Amino acid sequence: MLVMSRNVRIEWGDCDPANIVYFPRYFEIFDSAAGALIERALGMTKIKAQKVYDFVGYPVVDLRGRFHAPSRFGDDVVIETSCASIKRSSFEIVHRLTNGGKLAVEGFETRVWVGRDPSDPDKIKSKPIPEVVAARLKGE
Amino acid sequence: MLVMSRNVRIEWGDCDPANIVYFPRYFEIFDSAAGALIERALGMTKIKAQKVYDFVGYPVVDLRGRFHAPSRFGDDVVIETSCASIKRSSFEIVHRLTNGGKLAVEGFETRVWVGRDPSDPDKIKSKPIPEVVAARLKGE
Amino acid sequence: MLVMSRNVRIEWGDCDPANIVYFPRYFEIFDSAAGALIERALGMTKIKAQKVYDFVGYPVVDLRGRFHAPSRFGDDVVIETSCASIKRSSFEIVHRLTNGGKLAVEGFETRVWVGRDPSDPDKIKSKPIPEVVAARLKGE
Amino acid sequence: MLVMSRNVRIEWGDCDPANIVYFPRYFEIFDSAAGALIERALGMTKIKAQKVYDFVGYPVVDLRGRFHAPSRFGDDVVIETSCASIKRSSFEIVHRLTNGGKLAVEGFETRVWVGRDPSDPDKIKSKPIPEVVAARLKGE
Repeated sequence: MLVMSRNVRIEWGDCDPANIVYFPRYFEIFDSAAGALIERALGMTKIKAQKVYDFVGYPVVDLRGRFHAPSRFGDDVVIETSCASIKRSSFEIVHRLTNGGKLAVEGFETRVWVGRDPSDPDKIKSKPIPEVVAARLKGE
Repeated sequence: MLVMSRNVRIEWGDCDPANIVYFPRYFEIFDSAAGALIERALGMTKIKAQKVYDFVGYPVVDLRGRFHAPSRFGDDVVIETSCASIKRSSFEIVHRLTNGGKLAVEGFETRVWVGRDPSDPDKIKSKPIPEVVAARLKGE
Repeated sequence: MLVMSRNVRIEWGDCDPANIVYFPRYFEIFDSAAGALIERALGMTKIKAQKVYDFVGYPVVDLRGRFHAPSRFGDDVVIETSCASIKRSSFEIVHRLTNGGKLAVEGFETRVWVGRDPSDPDKIKSKPIPEVVAARLKGE
Repeated sequence: MLVMSRNVRIEWGDCDPANIVYFPRYFEIFDSAAGALIERALGMTKIKAQKVYDFVGYPVVDLRGRFHAPSRFGDDVVIETSCASIKRSSFEIVHRLTNGGKLAVEGFETRVWVGRDPSDPDKIKSKPIPEVVAARLKGE
């Protein structure tokens, strides 16, 4: 299983009047982490990969967040991101954010690999995750 | 059951390079809608209510989003927000975002009513939802 | 001169740990107001107008903000947006945000009307503002 | 003169439907860079410094941005931040964002050093920048 870890400084603009991270910001931070994980699995940037693998993206269709403890301005948190499961055209990404060694937030995203719909280029349609990408996400 | 509905224009800055709403933005939009629902149940602004009811806030501890269809810049969407259930100190808020009459996004938030922890004013602690607020959220 | 006014509620997520609007948020709020002003001058949505007038957008090339007084969560502010001047392919938008009747923030944007660069479709190039749009922005 | 440089990856969520950075995002990125510069001048985090130096913050009162070239998702940009001038209680921060070695965005912030107003603790009032901080910002 491919796992990536990143250190993130909680910025002033991430926080709300209660001086804790405004919760939608976690999903932005997690989305960037998910993008980095998939970029590593692809072995190239998404922009390049869109041409090589003829896909559009990997939108989130289902998301869950569990907030165990707040983080505050100036905190240095760690986010561990991994792929929890892979099906034919969908996969699950899990994020564990720890603050001072304690689990503070968990994020769970179900994403779908999509390309242009052949019958309507304005629409998108799920398509199989490239085998090499699936293998790398699994850590094979 | 108290239900509120609001119309929201999807703005340029809400959207990502795929020209669809960047998904963390939905949770900001839903959070504002939840705040408006609770303000109506309180019968006053949160700022005033904090003094009247001696509470700090109603943070989200668990959140789920389901994304059925994208929305785009310039779309006029409707968000229907209601309280799905109430316990002693926690409650569930549900958001249904429709676009052109079709369900596009669902949001589910579990929130906890909190006040200052009597044993440590830097911390927060759950406390009972005021009866009048609970009754109004139930639509009684 | 075309002038538009809108009421905006300051949301929890707009504010920072000092419990005042996080200043970059003003530019998002102003950008939406500028878009609404230009939509009115166009007489149609930007999406439709892009086809009718064969243009790409009106990006900001120069921006200034002056912050006279803070606004807080729950404040109902008023934003007055107008076009201060128009040249061949650029124009200036001015925003005046008042809170409780007092001027709180001023925003000044210089925007350029752009289309695809005929010599490189991946690039953009300034082009003349359509006469009808310029006339409406001037209030003629 | 104290100068700090940081590398920033442009994220998907930073960009708008034109696939370029949504301009208010630059001011969030610059604000974080300014905070890091001031933290270095303070020699401690802002949270600690608020107690040591009895101040509240350094809000922006005047801001300017000049946008010379767009940046896109996946771009690795460099931001050079420095203090351009210091007066008794105000100072100017300048940001130069380069992309591929070319100047893309300039940001200019006038900030004021503030503490609680002795006559009204709900208000803030400018106060002199601590000498040691001013000296470090000047690079002395």
